[in-house]
Amino acid sequence: MSHMQAHHDGSPLYVPQQAPRLGEVVPVFLRAPAGVRRIHVRSTPDGEPRFTAAVVDRRTENGDVWWRADVLVRNPVTTYRFLLDADGGPRWLTALGECGHDVPDATDFRLLAYDPPPAWARDAVVYQIFPDRFARSAAAADRPAPPWAMPCDWDTPVVGRGPETPHQFYGGDLDGIAARLDHLERLGVNTVYLTPIFPARSNHRYDAAAFDRVDPLLGGDAALARLAAAVHARGWRLIGDITSNHTGDGHEWFTAAVADVAAPERELYYFDAEAGDYESWNGVKSLPKLNWGSAELRRRFLDGPDSVMGRWLRPPYGLDGWRVDVANMTGRRGADAYTHEVAALLRRAVVAARPDGLVLAEHGHDYTRDLDADGWHGTMNYPGFTDPIWSWLVADGVRLPNFLGVPGGVRRRDGSAALATIRGFASLVSWRSYTHSWQLLGSHDSARIRSVVGDAARQEVAAGLLCTLPGTPMIFAGDELGLRGENGEASRTPMPWDRSESWDADTFARYRALVALRRAQPALRHGGLRWLHADADALVFVREAVEGGVLVLARRAPGVPVRLAGLGSADNVYGGAPGLAPAADGAVTLPADGPTFQVWRLV
Amino acid sequence: MSHMQAHHDGSPLYVPQQAPRLGEVVPVFLRAPAGVRRIHVRSTPDGEPRFTAAVVDRRTENGDVWWRADVLVRNPVTTYRFLLDADGGPRWLTALGECGHDVPDATDFRLLAYDPPPAWARDAVVYQIFPDRFARSAAAADRPAPPWAMPCDWDTPVVGRGPETPHQFYGGDLDGIAARLDHLERLGVNTVYLTPIFPARSNHRYDAAAFDRVDPLLGGDAALARLAAAVHARGWRLIGDITSNHTGDGHEWFTAAVADVAAPERELYYFDAEAGDYESWNGVKSLPKLNWGSAELRRRFLDGPDSVMGRWLRPPYGLDGWRVDVANMTGRRGADAYTHEVAALLRRAVVAARPDGLVLAEHGHDYTRDLDADGWHGTMNYPGFTDPIWSWLVADGVRLPNFLGVPGGVRRRDGSAALATIRGFASLVSWRSYTHSWQLLGSHDSARIRSVVGDAARQEVAAGLLCTLPGTPMIFAGDELGLRGENGEASRTPMPWDRSESWDADTFARYRALVALRRAQPALRHGGLRWLHADADALVFVREAVEGGVLVLARRAPGVPVRLAGLGSADNVYGGAPGLAPAADGAVTLPADGPTFQVWRLV
Repeated sequence: MSHMQAHHDGSPLYVPQQAPRLGEVVPVFLRAPAGVRRIHVRSTPDGEPRFTAAVVDRRTENGDVWWRADVLVRNPVTTYRFLLDADGGPRWLTALGECGHDVPDATDFRLLAYDPPPAWARDAVVYQIFPDRFARSAAAADRPAPPWAMPCDWDTPVVGRGPETPHQFYGGDLDGIAARLDHLERLGVNTVYLTPIFPARSNHRYDAAAFDRVDPLLGGDAALARLAAAVHARGWRLIGDITSNHTGDGHEWFTAAVADVAAPERELYYFDAEAGDYESWNGVKSLPKLNWGSAELRRRFLDGPDSVMGRWLRPPYGLDGWRVDVANMTGRRGADAYTHEVAALLRRAVVAARPDGLVLAEHGHDYTRDLDADGWHGTMNYPGFTDPIWSWLVADGVRLPNFLGVPGGVRRRDGSAALATIRGFASLVSWRSYTHSWQLLGSHDSARIRSVVGDAARQEVAAGLLCTLPGTPMIFAGDELGLRGENGEASRTPMPWDRSESWDADTFARYRALVALRRAQPALRHGGLRWLHADADALVFVREAVEGGVLVLARRAPGVPVRLAGLGSADNVYGGAPGLAPAADGAVTLPADGPTFQVWRLV
Repeated sequence: MSHMQAHHDGSPLYVPQQAPRLGEVVPVFLRAPAGVRRIHVRSTPDGEPRFTAAVVDRRTENGDVWWRADVLVRNPVTTYRFLLDADGGPRWLTALGECGHDVPDATDFRLLAYDPPPAWARDAVVYQIFPDRFARSAAAADRPAPPWAMPCDWDTPVVGRGPETPHQFYGGDLDGIAARLDHLERLGVNTVYLTPIFPARSNHRYDAAAFDRVDPLLGGDAALARLAAAVHARGWRLIGDITSNHTGDGHEWFTAAVADVAAPERELYYFDAEAGDYESWNGVKSLPKLNWGSAELRRRFLDGPDSVMGRWLRPPYGLDGWRVDVANMTGRRGADAYTHEVAALLRRAVVAARPDGLVLAEHGHDYTRDLDADGWHGTMNYPGFTDPIWSWLVADGVRLPNFLGVPGGVRRRDGSAALATIRGFASLVSWRSYTHSWQLLGSHDSARIRSVVGDAARQEVAAGLLCTLPGTPMIFAGDELGLRGENGEASRTPMPWDRSESWDADTFARYRALVALRRAQPALRHGGLRWLHADADALVFVREAVEGGVLVLARRAPGVPVRLAGLGSADNVYGGAPGLAPAADGAVTLPADGPTFQVWRLV
């Protein structure tokens, strides 16, 4: 890979108009080496290809040429690509890079005329909290445990797999979270994402028994209002977690539906008319699946200020949006295919309740066909981020058989393979959907990154990529302390507030510095992404914004030093390596030691 | 590329159940080298990944292993892929081949639970006729030319670009076609596709003035009935051409709409309420665009035996289906996105009129997102066939600036680039949609293949690929005589019936032999496709069916001989090369001369 390849992406440097409207003509820019003689942009308004010649806009000091082309935003999703004429024959430039043969439009760049996500989301750094395990308030001790619960002391080891797994009850609550926000402040995050807070029959609460009240075990509605006030007082955002695919079998809708086949709730689920059996999430009968063909379900979820989606976005709670659980299955069952329609309806309900609301889809595998459809603002990017980073950095001998359900678990792969996966997914969605998706190194549904990579040095590399690649970083509470967990359930570890000797203070310091770096460098939040190099052990890229550029080196092991031409000088701003100065031939040489994570500011 | 790679495709050899129903569990087969230890099939029922272990089904003489896996057809489009564990790490197998890194689902294999296309389409060889230019009956001379027409003698040169282009009127008619069916019989085709036959104001008739009667200049309704009877008497099929995107401005619907803003026809089009202007095809005002948001338009096109779609499929006409003009734009305009809905409605209307009806979409560029949606049975495969074959075989110095609108025209590319394009498109649609799409070397909308490749030898290579790769071959009338044409309009040459000295008899003989070969070899009609080799000048593949396999070599130029192991012996069945016998090392050596097109039957 040469940095002299032509480049374009959807960032403001290349697409100044980030929220185009239908019918608008939008200038897009392209950076190409001097040898390119002619460039056309190709789009397909109303389904028919149209080519428009690009013009030279300006030339850079190093000889590169910036071209400008106009694209008509004719349709809600306008795809476009470039045709470059140069020595060696014509080449296409799509979001997957340059290509010398004709390719389908799937990886074309995309302009979206849909309403954009809220502006705050662009700068968000998300901190995920699993309420039962984060912190207990004083009041928690006085609450009697419910019948399903196996009360645990805060230091009791979490059981990752077994009948007691969903029942271990640690008693964390919302006031406990509110009391620990200083920890988040030190870390530098600005968005709190809570896994479900509605009453349920499990510690994870994905089996909601109601949507109209906060679990009293968490402190009830009033505690949510207090937490929301505390979060908002710091200028942060608070995101909830809604199960749109199913409820628990203890949900009052479901018990009403079971009790009476004539109940209005019956149509909310998929009951077999003859046998009386019902569809459930992956066959787990405690999680009956919701039927989005039901007008009544849509009414309850969507209509008005007291709807499921709307109610918690209003004062005094004021959630700033929802993470939508199992969004990948929501509305899908056999021939039923309501998913995109439901996504759009959920988003509209959120925005009706608060115009700056965010709707983020859980999706554990290929999400690319579910984005850019006027529904989800983004997704949890497991396949296009977690998977390739894990595969690249996984420690020797680690066996994590349960990663995203793939037989054989995490497979160790080279940096070039990781890059191919990252680009493969990113190239199938708009820049907007890519950058508004949550990048994560793990969650309550996966092993913890420390258990994957094995040590602090490689966790730093992982966290470095989390904070410097495009997209919204999401940190699962405890990762910043170096906590471990072999699978999703085992990773739901209580935060060791009273055992600070168990904290990996160095890892916390690195997370803190990386989050601060992201905050300090506009290019890391809004910049484009140009990959400069990938080999087995190293990944190198630049993030570039109007305000300047940043060069990133991630190494999982020592290797051959990477030499790069055309970058100029650079000051180190993370990692402690020396600054970069071009040699006589104009190239700079990056450090060869590793594992390491280094960031320079281009000057 | 090694022929020892694992292989799967959607052909009956690998997917015995070709028309699965929703809810069915379908066995799929996979051929893999002996070193593969474990295979899983991955599908995503209701949007969630599921892995199922494959089992060894049988072993072949050369050591390959056939595996079997079960796939639940849970959704109308069920995607699946394979995970192979072998030395060197796990690999995915998708329709794009093997891959060592994680990739999105876009190229997964697909099972469709939609109603399949008619059985006859699988064996069709289509002959495209442009009625004004094919043949005149005796009655043609007596018909007065209409006011728009510039009458031409049959031998008058066609003007490819100019104001007279749409008005040159040669007076071919339907009885003229009926009288020339022996020519088609000699060629070996079995399906006649007519470009539009409704009244219009141009020789191409894509500007329909009515949909309820055949142009009297072509002989009227009765002539269509006679032609249909003659075609069907030979056991063939007859396909019409319908403009669902627009009408002509002379259409009675449009004139009514223009005459009265309150007319029921007003809503059939896109009129600007204030200015009175209207949307048209690519800004050509004589082709006003139809508005598929109109219930009245849907009624007229779809409802009942006298609807536009239905009327001509019934006796005494009995068209066997429609080619749908500008299907890529139909239903698309700004925020309007009715395309998939309209495709499904048109198909249902056709099947309601006759269950064995075919609906084939015109699409001049990337069609992949418009197939597999319960609408079009297939498409005209310009980008995934015409484009790569032209690019590979284009003669030196040929400048055809107007190919599919791409600036710079046809670009010469190597065989490996052509293969990448062919596979790139094929991998994004189901095997069913791929094989039911029309492969073509040209049409009334492009240059003729002879003008692209320059000589008979390379035209034979092109025609060879047309008749041996998957999909329905479509031959544009006159190509089999070696006729020339530099662009679509110039290619609309009258058939030189009275100048047989101008025929390229050798080219006709080769087309005839290739069509016969396709008819004789089931593998060429129903077989799978395994690519064995691609370099700059050669493409090699096998088509394999239960009845046996066929090996194909296409060469544009002499080169290094290709050696292939594991194939055994083979008898030449086209092209005249010697039979193949393995050397001591088990490999066979293919001819190195070229251009050449050779086919062997594997024994």
